[in-house]
Amino acid sequence: MPEQEKTENSEDVSSSKTQSLGNGRKESKDGDSEAKHNLDLAAVYVSDAQYNRNICFDTSPQSIRLYRLYNHWGFQVLIYVFVIVDLALALFERPALIPLPLWTTSVVELICLVAFTVRLIHYAKVIPRQNFWKDPKNICIIVIVVLSLIDLIIYAALELVGHSTVRWSRVLRPLLLVNITEGRQLRRAFRSIRNAMLEILYVFLMFMFSVLMFSLMALKLFGKRGLKTSEGNPYFTDYLEIVFDLYVLVTTANSPDVMMPAYNYSSYFSIFFIIYILINTYIFMSVFLAVVYNNYKKYLKEEVRQLVKAKKRKMLRAFSLLQETGRDGEPVVAQEKWNQLVKLVQPDLRNAHRELLWSVSDNHNKGYIGKLAFVQLADLLNIQVITVKSRIHPLQKWLPDLYNSPASRFICRMVNHRVFVIVYDVIILVNAVFIGLDEENPLISNAEWAFLALYLMEILLKLYTFEPRFFFAKHQFWNWFDTIIIVSALIATIINSALKSSGGYTSRQVLDIVFILRVLRLIRVVDNVKRFRAIINTLIRIGPAILTFGQLILVIYYIFAMVGMELFQGKIKFFEANSMDPGQEYCGNPLLKGTTFAALKYCKNNFNNVVNSFITLLELTVVNQWHVLTSGFTAVTHVSSRIFFVLFHIVVVIIIINIFIAFVLEAFFLEYTVAKSDLQTSLEKKIEELELGVEQDGLDGNLVESMETRDNDLGPSETGKEKPSLMFSIASKRYKTIDGLLQRMFEGDLSLEDIDEEDPENMSFPNPAFGSV
Amino acid sequence: MPEQEKTENSEDVSSSKTQSLGNGRKESKDGDSEAKHNLDLAAVYVSDAQYNRNICFDTSPQSIRLYRLYNHWGFQVLIYVFVIVDLALALFERPALIPLPLWTTSVVELICLVAFTVRLIHYAKVIPRQNFWKDPKNICIIVIVVLSLIDLIIYAALELVGHSTVRWSRVLRPLLLVNITEGRQLRRAFRSIRNAMLEILYVFLMFMFSVLMFSLMALKLFGKRGLKTSEGNPYFTDYLEIVFDLYVLVTTANSPDVMMPAYNYSSYFSIFFIIYILINTYIFMSVFLAVVYNNYKKYLKEEVRQLVKAKKRKMLRAFSLLQETGRDGEPVVAQEKWNQLVKLVQPDLRNAHRELLWSVSDNHNKGYIGKLAFVQLADLLNIQVITVKSRIHPLQKWLPDLYNSPASRFICRMVNHRVFVIVYDVIILVNAVFIGLDEENPLISNAEWAFLALYLMEILLKLYTFEPRFFFAKHQFWNWFDTIIIVSALIATIINSALKSSGGYTSRQVLDIVFILRVLRLIRVVDNVKRFRAIINTLIRIGPAILTFGQLILVIYYIFAMVGMELFQGKIKFFEANSMDPGQEYCGNPLLKGTTFAALKYCKNNFNNVVNSFITLLELTVVNQWHVLTSGFTAVTHVSSRIFFVLFHIVVVIIIINIFIAFVLEAFFLEYTVAKSDLQTSLEKKIEELELGVEQDGLDGNLVESMETRDNDLGPSETGKEKPSLMFSIASKRYKTIDGLLQRMFEGDLSLEDIDEEDPENMSFPNPAFGSV
Repeated sequence: MPEQEKTENSEDVSSSKTQSLGNGRKESKDGDSEAKHNLDLAAVYVSDAQYNRNICFDTSPQSIRLYRLYNHWGFQVLIYVFVIVDLALALFERPALIPLPLWTTSVVELICLVAFTVRLIHYAKVIPRQNFWKDPKNICIIVIVVLSLIDLIIYAALELVGHSTVRWSRVLRPLLLVNITEGRQLRRAFRSIRNAMLEILYVFLMFMFSVLMFSLMALKLFGKRGLKTSEGNPYFTDYLEIVFDLYVLVTTANSPDVMMPAYNYSSYFSIFFIIYILINTYIFMSVFLAVVYNNYKKYLKEEVRQLVKAKKRKMLRAFSLLQETGRDGEPVVAQEKWNQLVKLVQPDLRNAHRELLWSVSDNHNKGYIGKLAFVQLADLLNIQVITVKSRIHPLQKWLPDLYNSPASRFICRMVNHRVFVIVYDVIILVNAVFIGLDEENPLISNAEWAFLALYLMEILLKLYTFEPRFFFAKHQFWNWFDTIIIVSALIATIINSALKSSGGYTSRQVLDIVFILRVLRLIRVVDNVKRFRAIINTLIRIGPAILTFGQLILVIYYIFAMVGMELFQGKIKFFEANSMDPGQEYCGNPLLKGTTFAALKYCKNNFNNVVNSFITLLELTVVNQWHVLTSGFTAVTHVSSRIFFVLFHIVVVIIIINIFIAFVLEAFFLEYTVAKSDLQTSLEKKIEELELGVEQDGLDGNLVESMETRDNDLGPSETGKEKPSLMFSIASKRYKTIDGLLQRMFEGDLSLEDIDEEDPENMSFPNPAFGSV
Repeated sequence: MPEQEKTENSEDVSSSKTQSLGNGRKESKDGDSEAKHNLDLAAVYVSDAQYNRNICFDTSPQSIRLYRLYNHWGFQVLIYVFVIVDLALALFERPALIPLPLWTTSVVELICLVAFTVRLIHYAKVIPRQNFWKDPKNICIIVIVVLSLIDLIIYAALELVGHSTVRWSRVLRPLLLVNITEGRQLRRAFRSIRNAMLEILYVFLMFMFSVLMFSLMALKLFGKRGLKTSEGNPYFTDYLEIVFDLYVLVTTANSPDVMMPAYNYSSYFSIFFIIYILINTYIFMSVFLAVVYNNYKKYLKEEVRQLVKAKKRKMLRAFSLLQETGRDGEPVVAQEKWNQLVKLVQPDLRNAHRELLWSVSDNHNKGYIGKLAFVQLADLLNIQVITVKSRIHPLQKWLPDLYNSPASRFICRMVNHRVFVIVYDVIILVNAVFIGLDEENPLISNAEWAFLALYLMEILLKLYTFEPRFFFAKHQFWNWFDTIIIVSALIATIINSALKSSGGYTSRQVLDIVFILRVLRLIRVVDNVKRFRAIINTLIRIGPAILTFGQLILVIYYIFAMVGMELFQGKIKFFEANSMDPGQEYCGNPLLKGTTFAALKYCKNNFNNVVNSFITLLELTVVNQWHVLTSGFTAVTHVSSRIFFVLFHIVVVIIIINIFIAFVLEAFFLEYTVAKSDLQTSLEKKIEELELGVEQDGLDGNLVESMETRDNDLGPSETGKEKPSLMFSIASKRYKTIDGLLQRMFEGDLSLEDIDEEDPENMSFPNPAFGSV
């Protein structure tokens, strides 16, 4: 990746120009369409601020329409679909998992390339021309598309005349994931890694110096002693081999084997290895984690700071478009305009929710809000507010006499009782024992029906007690989980017994699914223990961020898989267990005869297709038996192919995994230390003030608890006071966007006051740069 | 360890009482001896504050004398020697590395036990009786001594009649290390771990639940498919075996072997293992690190807060003993008294240094200091101030004409030049290449003499240029390192060639030492790169803290080694390479025939003596091949011995190693973020003010740089201004004590203001409790 120190979205440089252009246009048009245009523009700014988009668009009405189209979720999904299809082509291209003729994959690839081009042209229409060419990510996409096209043509042409060449452009495909407009998170991650690289490099150099020193010492100490490894090879006689062996020892993959010959010769030699492990495995690896952690965090923090600044800037621009002069001569935005704006930005927002947001902004009921309150809007919209409609249970509406009868009320009370939960926990545990027993026993397989019935009854009872639309509300994760698992288990079990009784034949696949579903049911127990729930909630919360890492890993894996496939495809063959081929013993390659690789039956760990490559890379990430896997590939090619594997180890294990650990650590510390943000608190206060609150705990966590409180408040109770029909609660610690999580992470360290609101220079603050090819 | 929620040093509860007793005595004695006594007492308080001792002693003059004797460094060293001897007995007791007759080890153990008892009696004399019995660590020592005695008698008696029993009391020995008065750091570490245990337990339970669930699923998915492992055993058919296998997979030790049979059967099954590794290996292990990190830090912070409070309290007590009424009616301490006090506390402090400290405390030259300035004294004494005497080079004194001649000055300038450093770096690199080459080539072995001569010349040149006492000052680590390494290499090489030329016989041992010394010389290069130096300095700085971990690990290892030796001694035998015993093939135990353990020649990984046990435990800590090692021991005993190894894994790998990583991380973050403390800054300012400063950088790091600045300032220069003869510099980031480091770590989080100075309740603040048996 060449360093292109340009701004990612240099729109801000020119925006004041386009802005003034827009202002120039102002006089010539009539006020009404002008106001409409301003409102549209402001809505776009607010929406950009809300989702942290940093795109500089032309401000003409036409461009705005195009821009809103560009940001339509449908197109965003579509472009991801095309990227995924493009990446998935590796499954069908040679070396293929499912071979397809060349023309099929070529046509699909062409369609994808056209789609990327169309999307890029759309983007070019939206933003000013000079910005388009300044932005490295656009250049990247153009280069990738052109190179892919060239490669495709050359490959197809050579294929036609019978030559086979390398599909080198496939390495570029995952970079599309980084360079499309929506790949913001991923770009940020790569940028942070690149910035941390120098610091990491110094530690790495020192670490390598240490490895080289120890290797030299090992050569001198052990080389002349004529020791043999357990496989009978000479021990520590070649310097480069020693360096490799000791590098592997850092991954711990060949411990204690690499030490045994020396240790068996003399106990004193173990001191050498103990010191080595202490320094290089424990201390240096911790230092790597520390350096990666610290630097990644540092640069990410800087990025988030810029993000917050940019957001504020956009909100101020929106404000200046809508402002009118208030009573005190201060610029303000009136409630009516604000309402129109919010309706444009988020049309699906309930009226009550919008009114709530307004009353938080306009705390003193003035009918207008100032600059500061307006700027908060983007963050306010990002706070996930759960609206709960207090509805009457349909049964109560339809059959009030029956539903209010003592028996019915007894059932409701029973379902709400703690004992109900405990009873079902016990049932689950008994079920676990039954699952563990042999399912071919007829008693056990019949018991399965009983358990299914019990679980179904639980869901029906809860549906009887609680309002169904509340039970299946969007945030009731565990209710959805239960219902889906149990209904699928029911269906699968019925299919399974139908198959069994019809032909005596049991489909293994169906049975597997039945088993998996049965075991998954047991997870429910975890949710009933409060401490466990807290841990799980944290894990769920950092889920989106982990997804970014998933993409990061995917990009790296894909590149290495493509290179690996070109290097090693077909060199190691896997034969099915019932194959009679004599090559089965040595993976179809005589060079592997008698190696540990073949003895351990590692033949399927190869680079013969994309799926096998990914699994092999995963095993290399886990690091264990790293040297055995590596030795297999060096045996069938050349010792220099070790470079490929060492490079993979450095990139994935030393850098990416450490960043992952750092991120999980940071997220957990956040859970332990950070309270709610000010804005959340004020929103919550307002909800309380207006007496619109629902108990927080219940909604956030366990269903039953929340039901109990709800029942007390809203159920067929005797309290005379009428409750409002719509109630709110803040999903306090959930973040709609990863940016929200990041912002929270560094909130304590960011002093937002240092952003001077009126400073014109700030208006053209360049974003951090990122270039990648 | 039973929970004994008593205060570790409950002296503070009673101290006000003894204090008032001391005051009561005041009137009856004459003023002079009274003042002497107060001074002594104050000195003890200050000394206790300086070293964070929390011992409540009687305040009678006699007790104070006894107490100072108790704290004499000689006795402290002595008690550590006895503990080490006691621990080292394991080398000579059966199963012994070096067998000694029973009466020898018994007598030595008895002597040690007597020493511990004497030390304890001394302690009992120093502190009030009721406090002695309240302190769990005293009870612990008594229990350990008594139990050891009983065990010794029983064992000796049974040995005499020919029975052999278990020496169970040896497990208790390492606990002495924790419970002696000086084991403060270690007690604190154990206490923090114990407090963090609950939180860790919850995560562990959830982790185990996840492992059990996956095992159940694996049993159902793979159990009935009739798959075989690469060794031909049935695959995943027994539930408990699956649980163990999947637990091992978390350590990654059996990856990818455990997956291969299922993966070879169908690629889809790899999904099961990928999800398992993702959840249990990556996510859960990160969560463990996060939880251990966070909790350990939290409790440690609390401990340090108490420490700081206790220190302040002691200083206030010392102040109240010395105070007189100042001009403004405020209590103050006069310079004379202060001088007496500091002389008592630290007799080896240079006068100039003491005056410097006074001028920092008494910033306005009043001749007396108030309470706040006095309290700082303990911290001031802990700041490591390097005093540099500006001396004239002896040669200049003896042979001024020669030393000041142009040739001599040219040499000095040359040595100070950057090129000199670079030339020697190049020499070192060339040397490295020569070391790597075959040393039996006569050219190469002669080149070694040339290199030795070059290195010697470097040292001599530097000694010629720089003042020798400065060159060999205490803080000039690298000068010492160079000189020792090169002089030893010279001696060893001479001995080696003498041996060679005399009898043609080369001693392998001497040669080994020569090789090691030669390679160690190369380390010097690292120190010349600034970035590397920064990393090394950090590592050196956290050295003492790592030593505490060393002790922690020692305690845990020792206990597991003792238990392991009782369980597994003699079960696995190691035969020297040239032995003709047929048992060599299977480690002398037919049960091991054909196992991987024997095939990999792991026979020396046994529990037959303490050294082998420790190395085996180290290999288990590194985790790789964990299952192979474990399988060897279960094969020769029983499957239940897995409990021993799993327990070891949980304690050492999941808890201790994570704490170690957390500590390294924290120390590095400290380096990155924290500046000097206020006190250090004010001391530095004062040094500057008085124009007594030496350049900081040079002293802290590289010799040559510092020499250059020194040369400019002090050398035979032409500047007319006379420099003072004694100069100071702060070793800015070195800590005399670990407590200092800890205090710095949490300084930002500790708000010291919240300790109310006058609050009498604070005076009896109980220390955090710790009980261990």
